[in-house]
Amino acid sequence: MADFQKVTVLGAGVLGSQIAFQTAYKGFDVTSYDINQKALDAAAKRYDDLVETYKNEVPGAADGAADEARKRITLTDDLAKAADADLIIEAVPEVLELKQDTYRKLNELAPKDTIFATNSSSLLPSDLESSTGRPDRFLALHFANRVWQFNTAEIMGTKDTDPAVYDKVVQFASDIGMVPIQIHKEKAGYVLNSLLIPFLNAALELAAGGYAEPEDVDKTWRIATGAPLGPFQIYDVVGLMTPYNILMNGDQGNRHLGAWLKQNYIDKGKLGMASGEGFYTYPKSDQPA
Amino acid sequence: MADFQKVTVLGAGVLGSQIAFQTAYKGFDVTSYDINQKALDAAAKRYDDLVETYKNEVPGAADGAADEARKRITLTDDLAKAADADLIIEAVPEVLELKQDTYRKLNELAPKDTIFATNSSSLLPSDLESSTGRPDRFLALHFANRVWQFNTAEIMGTKDTDPAVYDKVVQFASDIGMVPIQIHKEKAGYVLNSLLIPFLNAALELAAGGYAEPEDVDKTWRIATGAPLGPFQIYDVVGLMTPYNILMNGDQGNRHLGAWLKQNYIDKGKLGMASGEGFYTYPKSDQPA
Repeated sequence: MADFQKVTVLGAGVLGSQIAFQTAYKGFDVTSYDINQKALDAAAKRYDDLVETYKNEVPGAADGAADEARKRITLTDDLAKAADADLIIEAVPEVLELKQDTYRKLNELAPKDTIFATNSSSLLPSDLESSTGRPDRFLALHFANRVWQFNTAEIMGTKDTDPAVYDKVVQFASDIGMVPIQIHKEKAGYVLNSLLIPFLNAALELAAGGYAEPEDVDKTWRIATGAPLGPFQIYDVVGLMTPYNILMNGDQGNRHLGAWLKQNYIDKGKLGMASGEGFYTYPKSDQPA
Repeated sequence: MADFQKVTVLGAGVLGSQIAFQTAYKGFDVTSYDINQKALDAAAKRYDDLVETYKNEVPGAADGAADEARKRITLTDDLAKAADADLIIEAVPEVLELKQDTYRKLNELAPKDTIFATNSSSLLPSDLESSTGRPDRFLALHFANRVWQFNTAEIMGTKDTDPAVYDKVVQFASDIGMVPIQIHKEKAGYVLNSLLIPFLNAALELAAGGYAEPEDVDKTWRIATGAPLGPFQIYDVVGLMTPYNILMNGDQGNRHLGAWLKQNYIDKGKLGMASGEGFYTYPKSDQPA
């Protein structure tokens, strides 16, 4: 076990609340911080929902363990209180200035030994390290949505991260039931998006270029690799807006693919499974609540 | 059913023999051509082995169906006899001049209505169409190794292919138990390699760039997508030589990846599952016979 007694998660949005809950579920006392009472009320509702989700989806959780986890979470909007922790996992919105400002405040309030970890998916830790005031005790710890199911934790330091700190966070990821994925050097997109984005783009090129229908592309992949989902099914699970935004920040070829996605799907309200339709149509019962 | 009475497969190598056997297994009389008696003797052995493979791996095949299929295959090294067919599937070695020469001879010998289909994976049908003498009755019909298991048939015409011919071949693919994958315009790599190559390259970049270990890359993909195999496991199944050759024909970045693959794996005899070791080590019992 990593010797963390107190863990704080900053931000109690969709992923922040999942990280906090999973950490509490594995026995840690967790402080869940968000900016005001309204945000905390929403967070409390999220935690109550997670209790039910875990009971339904995580073996053993219904035998009291999910309820116990809920009790180990303390909500606060007092950053000074939140800062009193051994490990602080930051999951605030993906806005560079907001994160930098958060780290500057945090650095003044937190003990100097406290380790900071960002869950950012689109920023590199080196974009943030100078504002942490403790580059040697800062790194990225990146979770995936539905942490109890897609239980990878990608761990990526900067060149300034102390290897002992890195190893402690790897151990912590393991302690909270994640499969630690060690990334040795900074890489935009970590491992998962470094694989997923070229794969999804290649599929989109086939459809947007008029070479093959999404259904046939998916069939080919499923049959050839034994995978349960083809690339267009993955688009529908992820939702089309995130890939679209990534494409529109890319080169001309990417923006062309993004424009095709917008014209043929997004503008028609086909945003993926959550909207009931994307590349495929989903019955109401398949849509996330 | 497509109205083909007589089907010929040119070339009785690994894939040619599988295509012929699968076609016979679905009830067609098949002529299997190869260039001389020695090649035919090797082919006969392949068909005998396929009878056993089908009995072991294809439900229902052991009840006489695999033996019956074997009887519907006629071996010949007489191109004039092989040319007397409604559909000729060409699966000769991937050498442009050899294929062109084969088509020129075939065009003189075959009835003018006979449809020619190439199984080429690396050439486009437009590279070959002029030598067929019948561009309207020529297209690509591309199978995957182990056709009874990986049963996609990618169908790709040129701009000169008669749509009625295209549709007949789609129907034929379905008749012989394949899932027809319709490709509307010529595309190097068809659907499968258009997805697989960027995916495998992205994985290789992570490992060769020192970002993450192959095992961690594979874990990430399996957990995130539910796929049974990560990219490095796929490399091992495919074998490392084909990806290596494709990389060395690519741009500088690709050649750099190829060189890394050669130095760290190929030069050490780690060629994939068939050699007992690739990115992973395989016990003897897992290696193909």
